[in-house]
Amino acid sequence: MISKKMRPFLENNSAIRMMFEEGKKMAELYGADKVYDFSLGNPNVPAPQKVGEAIKEILDEEDPLFVHGYMSNAGYPQVREAIAENLNQRFGTSFAGRNLIMTVGAGSGLNVALKTVLDPGDEVLTFAPYFLEYRAYVTNYDGVLVTVEPDTETFQVNLEAFRAKINEKTKAVIINNPNNPTGVVYSEETICALAAVLNEKQAAYGHEIYLISDEPYRELVFDGAAVPFVTKYYDNTMVVYSYSKSLSLPGERIGYLLIPDEVSESAATIDAATIANRISGCVNAPSLIQLAVGRCVDCQADLDFYDRNRKTLYEGLTSMGFDCVRPQGAFYLWMKVPAGKQAKDKASSDGCSRETAAAAGMTEAADRKELLAAEAEFVQAAKRYHILAVPGSSFACPGYVRLAYCVSYETIVNALPEFRKLAADYGLSV
Amino acid sequence: MISKKMRPFLENNSAIRMMFEEGKKMAELYGADKVYDFSLGNPNVPAPQKVGEAIKEILDEEDPLFVHGYMSNAGYPQVREAIAENLNQRFGTSFAGRNLIMTVGAGSGLNVALKTVLDPGDEVLTFAPYFLEYRAYVTNYDGVLVTVEPDTETFQVNLEAFRAKINEKTKAVIINNPNNPTGVVYSEETICALAAVLNEKQAAYGHEIYLISDEPYRELVFDGAAVPFVTKYYDNTMVVYSYSKSLSLPGERIGYLLIPDEVSESAATIDAATIANRISGCVNAPSLIQLAVGRCVDCQADLDFYDRNRKTLYEGLTSMGFDCVRPQGAFYLWMKVPAGKQAKDKASSDGCSRETAAAAGMTEAADRKELLAAEAEFVQAAKRYHILAVPGSSFACPGYVRLAYCVSYETIVNALPEFRKLAADYGLSV
Repeated sequence: MISKKMRPFLENNSAIRMMFEEGKKMAELYGADKVYDFSLGNPNVPAPQKVGEAIKEILDEEDPLFVHGYMSNAGYPQVREAIAENLNQRFGTSFAGRNLIMTVGAGSGLNVALKTVLDPGDEVLTFAPYFLEYRAYVTNYDGVLVTVEPDTETFQVNLEAFRAKINEKTKAVIINNPNNPTGVVYSEETICALAAVLNEKQAAYGHEIYLISDEPYRELVFDGAAVPFVTKYYDNTMVVYSYSKSLSLPGERIGYLLIPDEVSESAATIDAATIANRISGCVNAPSLIQLAVGRCVDCQADLDFYDRNRKTLYEGLTSMGFDCVRPQGAFYLWMKVPAGKQAKDKASSDGCSRETAAAAGMTEAADRKELLAAEAEFVQAAKRYHILAVPGSSFACPGYVRLAYCVSYETIVNALPEFRKLAADYGLSV
Repeated sequence: MISKKMRPFLENNSAIRMMFEEGKKMAELYGADKVYDFSLGNPNVPAPQKVGEAIKEILDEEDPLFVHGYMSNAGYPQVREAIAENLNQRFGTSFAGRNLIMTVGAGSGLNVALKTVLDPGDEVLTFAPYFLEYRAYVTNYDGVLVTVEPDTETFQVNLEAFRAKINEKTKAVIINNPNNPTGVVYSEETICALAAVLNEKQAAYGHEIYLISDEPYRELVFDGAAVPFVTKYYDNTMVVYSYSKSLSLPGERIGYLLIPDEVSESAATIDAATIANRISGCVNAPSLIQLAVGRCVDCQADLDFYDRNRKTLYEGLTSMGFDCVRPQGAFYLWMKVPAGKQAKDKASSDGCSRETAAAAGMTEAADRKELLAAEAEFVQAAKRYHILAVPGSSFACPGYVRLAYCVSYETIVNALPEFRKLAADYGLSV
């Protein structure tokens, strides 16, 4: 008697989560130091010391009724104001506390945004490869997630494919910048081009198209890359943020949804989103940690840690002959599955899109099948060396794997010889 | 461009929440000690000292990666096992950790349960008066909430009305025990009778009917009242719990959903609920506070505090001639709106049910209109004395008000003279 909507999930549970459970089992079996688990975005940098200190200070200084009690559904006013002010300082924006709704992480922020604007049948566009939970989130509100094929040269937005997919049913577009799983940062040029298309299509269709920017990795950028603040480029933008990655608090479920005054009917939209947050059952974002992040708006992520991991892994893998996208942001490395004996030459650059493959008919379908087989074979081959990687098909982009390098530095150093064996199995130039 | 489903909420926002905001404004205007806000179930007993201590100990003793990191979506295994063991000790049950899914409070637990089992058009029965958010929760999954008229003599379950409403579309029944807003505790006799009807109807319709027991007030009982543990009486029971009230942590959003092995296909149901928790965007219950409640399973609520409030308020109000249900549990007092000059004799005992009124036609509809007018007038009259009470219509039961006595003792003592003035205005025997 499980609901019809939930049944497919039972059969097709999150590959990432299943791998997380598998990683835990493998760690028990072989010892944690003998398992190289690159499957989950669970930061290995501890939360800044200031977070723990802030929590203790709040417990010591504040009334427990205030610390653990209900507050306005959108969150503590002073926390929202502190965050708004911090954003304004950093990005030259002019947000007020009222523009922010504190949420149970970015996952909940995305759900609140989608619940606020989606009617059944509305289409939401996103760009492959993408975090597969987006599909579940859109389906929660009977929307239809439509995938835009990637530009596999740059993994920036594929504008031509975007133009082909956007239509009058399109109610929202989700971007994730810096990107999970590719580690790419969308450039200002990309965001401007995206905004131009959206403005043109809003005018053509006579209704709002919301750009929902999912930005939990905003601060995690390297090589001086700049992440454009999207609200400055397109009016109907909502920003979803989480402290999961920047402050290493993924289990705490704390983030926010930002709805600027520039959004159409912004006051009503903010009210509706606040109600959506309440009736989804969250009621409000957890109180103590909400107060704590309010005191830690200036805290910095330990970028050096991630940068060392990034360079070590990227340089190690490319030197072995693996074909990787050079990560500029987040803490993921996106690697092409090397062609095996059977699968040689099948991991072609246009392998990402289910839709393309389907449209082009039998040959591509067969190619895709082989691509999936090659990817599965590679993931299994890696597992033999206790390396856990998430298959690209988990991001609607088979033929790749994602390696989350938010692990300890030792994990990367110790994994490299195992990767070398894997490279040798695949006949790469070692 | 706000979604069609969210628009009605904008016009008809939660009366309780609006009153909460209004109370805050009144406190600013007149001073907090001059406002008697009985509107919100925000406990005035601070969280037990052990909770704060546990949080600090966890921060000092445990690895921050463990404390703030992702865990299995259902929660930390050791927390779930500690809770299961505590329940088993207290209720002679035999739950394991796997039967528990830690949730973002009871609100989220209810949503997860409903998302797991509801198909569009399925009916969910609940008993008036009820926490009005149930309607929003059921609507989230395109279910239909059907209200069973109350037994206004006892405010136990009205079995006759229940039998009349249950049908083959019924997929679930929500009870809230101890009850918000009436303060009544459902007896073992009530639960047995309910289980008998449910078993009979399950057999007749050939499908499961889930009994979802919402129990955030389980420990808050007085006069030696016993709250039956419902899983022992009916197999297809799910229990939703929150630490909001027992440990005074409403803002923290921490609770659980319990799915016993006796539930049909329990393993698949637990898996589906765990996935529902994830894809709703919550991902998991907040980590630090989850660990903290795991260390506080033995903590007791300060019952004496509530009991003193309960007796003082109940005895004070009844001595003034107000007609109140004697509260046995939770921290709410349910009071009949006294008949005013215009509304005299209209606050009849069958005034609760919108359905009854509608079915009986014009006279009752007119009566109901007067009842609503009398209730609104009373709430306004109370506000003139800075007393905030939630109208019964907010619980689908006009003609009453709910007074949340989880306020400070001083609030009650200082409010009584104001209630006396209100009683005098209504010509009650003072």
